[in-house]
Amino acid sequence: MKKKRTPLVLIQSSQTAANLQYICGTQLPETAVLIKKFHNSTLVVSEMETNRMRRNVKESISVVHPEKIGSTWKKGPADWVSKIISGKKIRVTPDFPIALAEKLRGKGFNLIIAKEEVCPRREIKTDAETKAIQQSQRAAVAAMKAAIAQIASAKIGRDQILRHGKTTLTSEVVRATIGHTLLDNDCIAEETIVSCGPASADPHERGEGPLRASEPIVIDIFPRSGKSGYWGDITRTVCRGPASAELKKQYNAVKAAQAAQLKKAKAGVWADTIHKTGADLMEARGFKTETINDVPQGFIHGTGHGVGLEIHEAPRVSSATHQKLRAGHIITIEPGLYYSEIGGVRIEDTILVTKDGYKMLAPCPKKLEI
Amino acid sequence: MKKKRTPLVLIQSSQTAANLQYICGTQLPETAVLIKKFHNSTLVVSEMETNRMRRNVKESISVVHPEKIGSTWKKGPADWVSKIISGKKIRVTPDFPIALAEKLRGKGFNLIIAKEEVCPRREIKTDAETKAIQQSQRAAVAAMKAAIAQIASAKIGRDQILRHGKTTLTSEVVRATIGHTLLDNDCIAEETIVSCGPASADPHERGEGPLRASEPIVIDIFPRSGKSGYWGDITRTVCRGPASAELKKQYNAVKAAQAAQLKKAKAGVWADTIHKTGADLMEARGFKTETINDVPQGFIHGTGHGVGLEIHEAPRVSSATHQKLRAGHIITIEPGLYYSEIGGVRIEDTILVTKDGYKMLAPCPKKLEI
Repeated sequence: MKKKRTPLVLIQSSQTAANLQYICGTQLPETAVLIKKFHNSTLVVSEMETNRMRRNVKESISVVHPEKIGSTWKKGPADWVSKIISGKKIRVTPDFPIALAEKLRGKGFNLIIAKEEVCPRREIKTDAETKAIQQSQRAAVAAMKAAIAQIASAKIGRDQILRHGKTTLTSEVVRATIGHTLLDNDCIAEETIVSCGPASADPHERGEGPLRASEPIVIDIFPRSGKSGYWGDITRTVCRGPASAELKKQYNAVKAAQAAQLKKAKAGVWADTIHKTGADLMEARGFKTETINDVPQGFIHGTGHGVGLEIHEAPRVSSATHQKLRAGHIITIEPGLYYSEIGGVRIEDTILVTKDGYKMLAPCPKKLEI
Repeated sequence: MKKKRTPLVLIQSSQTAANLQYICGTQLPETAVLIKKFHNSTLVVSEMETNRMRRNVKESISVVHPEKIGSTWKKGPADWVSKIISGKKIRVTPDFPIALAEKLRGKGFNLIIAKEEVCPRREIKTDAETKAIQQSQRAAVAAMKAAIAQIASAKIGRDQILRHGKTTLTSEVVRATIGHTLLDNDCIAEETIVSCGPASADPHERGEGPLRASEPIVIDIFPRSGKSGYWGDITRTVCRGPASAELKKQYNAVKAAQAAQLKKAKAGVWADTIHKTGADLMEARGFKTETINDVPQGFIHGTGHGVGLEIHEAPRVSSATHQKLRAGHIITIEPGLYYSEIGGVRIEDTILVTKDGYKMLAPCPKKLEI
């Protein structure tokens, strides 16, 4: 219990924003410092933000501005912390900014860098959180269906390029369709992937330009609800027109790998076992993972990740995660195979892990040829 | 020149992302470390990201993955840095993560925290950057016009609530209109403000629920281009139906303040003088700035901020900025007045500072009653 009695100082940043939202129950402004003590916590924001934060944060948190604690805005976070904490020992997160750390040390503080997760409870989702993620996931599915319908209805030109009425169907056009559908469902996505053919062999390539027939089109949608702040995540791979025998085999291997992984998923199973189940199945079907000409090929990423207030959060599901799945984990299962010449295939769903298995947060069909 | 010869180590984070994009010429993945030397720089990313980054970064930057430099992904950034830098002195940014700093110190590195901006050139926009910001600003203006048209065409119910066909016109509905228009212009905005009446007295309140006649509606749109990564920023205040004499006075004071500030804006003028010009004018018209019942009222924020790869960047334009405007600065001029009972009025444009004055990046009408 000693550790819990040492005050923890959190300063707003991209790495800490999700923890701060979790602890405070609301998104915080650009500059915000939380001093979290065992029984009561203090949030320091500017005078202008004080009232809005008082309305929105959890009851247990006192909101103050620097002038209220005998400091000023200009004196900055180190001075604010010193006005609130009487002891000299504080805990900070690994991403705590070094300049502020040095200032606090200069004031005599002894900084202990937290070794464990500051909010370990974030891994296990409450019912309210599950509902929020499910809403974002439903938005993602609606957008996926709209995107696939648009590609399915495209005409195939003589040059194999897809046409949409009189114009070319591009990654950008499909991305816009996805964006509008997400907005209609109170979500936005900054980096939707719609990549076609060899470009899709790079899992993070966003994609641009004309879409072509008989090539894999990887669509990865990860929207965030503007209201709740929770994310969803889904990927499908489709092919307009006939797919080659190689592409079909590649697709079926990924689909079978995901099915096998989903079948294994339940509380108590090791995360790395889930990963190995998919990796072994695809390898057994002849799909090797190796680096050729400095380009990694095959199953070149982990199987999945937690989804919540961050798009990528604990737990990871990969060969390196020796951690058991627990009921309340919300994770993606997204095996994939990537080859420079053919392109990529990835199939991803977001699931809630339960005692006996899993619950698909929002179902969406899986079909290669459309 | 000595300072420039000390390698600078940058690690991807929300605070550093814009600098990294500026230096590298492209947005970087979640985990990325740049070792910037005087003549050549090295970017470390995962093996999976290596080829995409090689295609996208500036020519002067070498892209490697940990295995290429005798390390592994698991060993992490401290090990990667030690493999690339032979000397023991490195510069880091003030937001550098403390845990990584301690690891580097453990390896014998001497960390110098950069006191000045790492990319001071970012303040002065190139022609290409100005065009990119102008595009986002044009998207913002298109969205503003769509929002104002929607509010102007609303019917006023007996209860003073605005109706849109048979449904109520809410902040959420107008925000969706803005979102769709931005998407059609290749931009997205995460936190558009559409706040009405007393709620608008809090400058950062996003707004929710029904919009009402004869009350101020503050609309603040700050979109980012998904392609370029550059932002735009605009605010208008409108009132559907007749405004009270008080609201009109408040609006006219803000409008006159902005006009006076714009008239003063040119290279060589002190930023704090610009702020004072607006503050003095509004005060002379009887609009006081003071905290009443713990709520700040009046002109309670700065006049503006730089806009570029970050929505808020250097230079600031406030009473605390003793810095001269320079040709190539792109800044907002956004005076406002906020009173608990009436609500807020803010008028904001984004301008390019020139030798002789300024250039409005994208013009948009200013009219209270619609």
